[in-house]
Amino acid sequence: MKTLMLLLVAVSFAPQAHAASEEAVNTAWLVLASVLVFFMQAGFALLESGMSRAKNAVNVMMKNYMDCCVGGIVFWLFGFGLMFGANVTGWFGMSHFASNDGEPWDYTFLLFQMMFAATAATIASGAMAERTRYGAYLIGAVLISGVIYPIFGSWVWGGLYGGQGWLAKLGFIDFAGSTVVHSIGAWCALAGILVLGPRLGRFSPDGRARLIPGHNLGLVALGGFILWVGWFGFNAGSNLEVSSSLGLIALNTHLAAVAGALGALLAQRSTASPVLLTTTVNGSIGGLVGITAGCASMAPGFALLSGLIAGFVVVYGMRLLDRLQLDDVVGAIPVHGFAGIWGTLAAGLFYQGDLFNWERVAVQALGAAAAFLWAFPVALVFYFLLSKTMGLRVSTQHEQRGLDFAEHAEVGYPEFNLTQTFDSEQWSRRG
Amino acid sequence: MKTLMLLLVAVSFAPQAHAASEEAVNTAWLVLASVLVFFMQAGFALLESGMSRAKNAVNVMMKNYMDCCVGGIVFWLFGFGLMFGANVTGWFGMSHFASNDGEPWDYTFLLFQMMFAATAATIASGAMAERTRYGAYLIGAVLISGVIYPIFGSWVWGGLYGGQGWLAKLGFIDFAGSTVVHSIGAWCALAGILVLGPRLGRFSPDGRARLIPGHNLGLVALGGFILWVGWFGFNAGSNLEVSSSLGLIALNTHLAAVAGALGALLAQRSTASPVLLTTTVNGSIGGLVGITAGCASMAPGFALLSGLIAGFVVVYGMRLLDRLQLDDVVGAIPVHGFAGIWGTLAAGLFYQGDLFNWERVAVQALGAAAAFLWAFPVALVFYFLLSKTMGLRVSTQHEQRGLDFAEHAEVGYPEFNLTQTFDSEQWSRRG
Amino acid sequence: MKTLMLLLVAVSFAPQAHAASEEAVNTAWLVLASVLVFFMQAGFALLESGMSRAKNAVNVMMKNYMDCCVGGIVFWLFGFGLMFGANVTGWFGMSHFASNDGEPWDYTFLLFQMMFAATAATIASGAMAERTRYGAYLIGAVLISGVIYPIFGSWVWGGLYGGQGWLAKLGFIDFAGSTVVHSIGAWCALAGILVLGPRLGRFSPDGRARLIPGHNLGLVALGGFILWVGWFGFNAGSNLEVSSSLGLIALNTHLAAVAGALGALLAQRSTASPVLLTTTVNGSIGGLVGITAGCASMAPGFALLSGLIAGFVVVYGMRLLDRLQLDDVVGAIPVHGFAGIWGTLAAGLFYQGDLFNWERVAVQALGAAAAFLWAFPVALVFYFLLSKTMGLRVSTQHEQRGLDFAEHAEVGYPEFNLTQTFDSEQWSRRG
Repeated sequence: MKTLMLLLVAVSFAPQAHAASEEAVNTAWLVLASVLVFFMQAGFALLESGMSRAKNAVNVMMKNYMDCCVGGIVFWLFGFGLMFGANVTGWFGMSHFASNDGEPWDYTFLLFQMMFAATAATIASGAMAERTRYGAYLIGAVLISGVIYPIFGSWVWGGLYGGQGWLAKLGFIDFAGSTVVHSIGAWCALAGILVLGPRLGRFSPDGRARLIPGHNLGLVALGGFILWVGWFGFNAGSNLEVSSSLGLIALNTHLAAVAGALGALLAQRSTASPVLLTTTVNGSIGGLVGITAGCASMAPGFALLSGLIAGFVVVYGMRLLDRLQLDDVVGAIPVHGFAGIWGTLAAGLFYQGDLFNWERVAVQALGAAAAFLWAFPVALVFYFLLSKTMGLRVSTQHEQRGLDFAEHAEVGYPEFNLTQTFDSEQWSRRG
Repeated sequence: MKTLMLLLVAVSFAPQAHAASEEAVNTAWLVLASVLVFFMQAGFALLESGMSRAKNAVNVMMKNYMDCCVGGIVFWLFGFGLMFGANVTGWFGMSHFASNDGEPWDYTFLLFQMMFAATAATIASGAMAERTRYGAYLIGAVLISGVIYPIFGSWVWGGLYGGQGWLAKLGFIDFAGSTVVHSIGAWCALAGILVLGPRLGRFSPDGRARLIPGHNLGLVALGGFILWVGWFGFNAGSNLEVSSSLGLIALNTHLAAVAGALGALLAQRSTASPVLLTTTVNGSIGGLVGITAGCASMAPGFALLSGLIAGFVVVYGMRLLDRLQLDDVVGAIPVHGFAGIWGTLAAGLFYQGDLFNWERVAVQALGAAAAFLWAFPVALVFYFLLSKTMGLRVSTQHEQRGLDFAEHAEVGYPEFNLTQTFDSEQWSRRG
Repeated sequence: MKTLMLLLVAVSFAPQAHAASEEAVNTAWLVLASVLVFFMQAGFALLESGMSRAKNAVNVMMKNYMDCCVGGIVFWLFGFGLMFGANVTGWFGMSHFASNDGEPWDYTFLLFQMMFAATAATIASGAMAERTRYGAYLIGAVLISGVIYPIFGSWVWGGLYGGQGWLAKLGFIDFAGSTVVHSIGAWCALAGILVLGPRLGRFSPDGRARLIPGHNLGLVALGGFILWVGWFGFNAGSNLEVSSSLGLIALNTHLAAVAGALGALLAQRSTASPVLLTTTVNGSIGGLVGITAGCASMAPGFALLSGLIAGFVVVYGMRLLDRLQLDDVVGAIPVHGFAGIWGTLAAGLFYQGDLFNWERVAVQALGAAAAFLWAFPVALVFYFLLSKTMGLRVSTQHEQRGLDFAEHAEVGYPEFNLTQTFDSEQWSRRG
């Protein structure tokens, strides 16, 4: 009997001694996923800077660099608590503010979510580029990271420390945030550009859109690649633990991205438009947004289809904004907003094992609508108040001179001879 | 007895409850490795765009962006099935096409392999840059990702779902693809540039090579770093599971890369040539290609030696192409083809515990030859037919004007004053 | 009984068969962390090149590319042995040179440490940019990676294969190397710029500092992002194994970085200076340096405070160097040296569960002082001898013409029209 006991102990402790602990492995996984999501900030900075004019290249970079800094701090201070704290009502959380004595996993989870909050905030920077005051922009980033995003987030993902969000109770599916992160960011961006108005000369007096080309398309392509790289952390990290299902999530993510680029290419070709790098990159990002909600609950073929349609949504969405005379410098609203709605619906439509369940789709539509109805008016009022107090838009003189010089006393390319900045004569060529 | 039973259950279930499952961990590992391999696409895009002229900067980026998109889709549709499907004959697989209801691991493995297929396809884009039509290039990428690469791959790595490739049966060693991925890509590239012919003015009327400098060498260095970063996923990911041997694989990868750069530096110095950034970066990439086959079965000292020699191979290979009047814009053929052969032989020569076994080396040589004999003629015929039908090369006017404007109606640096593009007067300086 | 035995075996072997082994998982973790640390080389290259003038863009990139190559080789040859080999005296190790037949973990650990050695070496390149001879620089990198860094490292982290460093015996805390890596690199840089002297025209005849703007600030921002990304591997990788504490380490790393950028912003604002992108990025890097020592033993709130103060240290440190007429092109000495001292002290001051223990702080100060007293004089003598023999500084003609052309016969942007390089007239504007 004693021998058996010894044997028992020896045999059964053996694996314990040498096996990796689940919590340790999940921590490592989420840290790596956080790193990937953080890297997306670089992708946004490059994409947005490359799509802007050289005279604003530094300013755009700086907005992306600093929004994740101030956003990170406010999210730690109160955003995380609003989003994941004990959620009695289902409408916001109320614990875990400025978390400073948590359990190990609390810190890991906080880090990952902090990166998400920064993503939501940074989406607005691209749409509002080339004309927004630096200080005012950062205050907006504080509001998005600290209030607008976390409160909506609590409705879907909240209640980690008790309670559950009201949308989650209805069965709303948004695995990694087509709506929670991307649409919320886009609706804030929409509010911002409505208050700001378009850049000088962006629309001709008779209302036709004029092209203002981005100054460095290599940065746009690199930014697209980096966003794509980071998105694997965004989607697969949202699983929060290692599991064999990560493969499907990542595969769906990739298939939707490649199909998004293809969809944008086909949409451009189908109207005999030139196949632009900028639009193609946006197509792939749209594909990524379009699979973010449903990446864990869809077969690969449907992921491909979701991405393909998202590519079309992006191209036609960009045209719609042009027609409405809304000046979204990088196409953030079609990419994150319109493709975000589509992705949220797709997660319902193509739910594995229960395709085209319209009840499910209705809940998805409700969630997408709730995001708009929450984020857009709040951001609109906020940006309006900001524009009437400290001012949201730079002066005409500063806009013409460029925000790099006007706001930072630094220029992006001091040794390069730049041409006259684009004016209406040039715009009219393809307008 | 009952107490013992309870104890038994308690003790032995404890590790089970808290230990990370092997499949989950391996899935996470392969997803992360896939992300790293995907990131190599950005490396290729930067390196190739930086080595091209400004007027083609967008076009090169776009080719890299889209080849992984169309390549990904065709690899999912049929490439994966040809490569890894049930392989009765040893010459190609015939199952798992358009995989849509797989086991979790199937999806993970498919994702990783999809990234490899894209790598093989994208190698050609650099060699054929600055003169290849966009549409024709993408059709080529479809052929490489969907047919040429997977069929050769099935000979070495095939038979995941039954059967084994004929080269694998002979004991051919190619751990991560010096031959399977890199040489295959390079021989397709060689076929492409033979059909295309050199860029206008690349060789003087009396046959001397003229230098056409790349327009942005910072992009080349960044591209080199990113390729290097991604290669850790390429080589260590090819282990397909976490294990303690990943350390040696990654160390060998790194040592070969540093030695490749040093080899290129020494080769340049030994002939009193200036030490070019472009060539040094190519040396490090050559070192990486040179260790890709043998990274898991070689001692670190030999990995260093393999990389060092690969650096020399790259430098002398680039000179050989110049002498043969073959215009490989980025040096893809020396880097991926010649260093790929060397790496395949080195894996045999320096096999741990069985050095210089000439029988093994002969099998390696056979595999390297088989890759050439398969990929080169098929690609040559294909590109030739393409050039006679839809056309492979752009018109002279478009080549002079630049493919960005001609094919995409978009330019990479619209606000920067560019000098006259390089012409023969300037070339003759160092020609 | 027999049934029980069978049950016993079945139950207790079950987890063993399917659980991931700890060594395998830790290997994967350290390989991934090594990849992230290696990626920092790209970050340094971009940041330093972007802060230099266009005429030196290639040279700076090349120094970063090659120092990790030659540094890697010498670290493998003897640096690793000096640092981690059997350390009888406590002052240096003496085994494991040119490791070629190690255990699996030896290789993994060597890889990770090789990346650290390259980081230490590359810090000098930025400070000494735009005037240092390429060959002489690489010899310096060999000395740092192979001797200066490993010997100091052995005092703190040494004795893996027996023995312990003398600073470790005193209880000196430097989890990931605020002192061991960053300060050591910075003191070598300080020695270098003292021997080199400032760039032509950097200080006016009456001693006032003139601004020499970096040529491409987009590269600076991207470099900052990449360094930040890599730092997660640097700090969390230093844990050497997966564990639930990785979350706190990574969260502290991130909070210190965001606070460092904010600190630099506040420091600039508080003196009515323009908020420069370059300085803000340096602030975030300073925040990262400032948490590197204490990231594993500090509550998040203190990490934030450490980073915030580091941001101020960087800004005032840069001004101090200007006043002392020391020309540190990228601010490497404030960022890695001064913030490194601060971070080392902060690790003592804010030690979790034992705040403001002045005995602990005294040991930290001793370690920081030891780093200076070892690295600075050795590097100073070495660079002085180098300058008197083969020469450390390029000729005035080469400096004016730019090192790209003079040393590599290659220029970074051959097709871009560049303005006259910055001369004293322009400098005086903001000097």
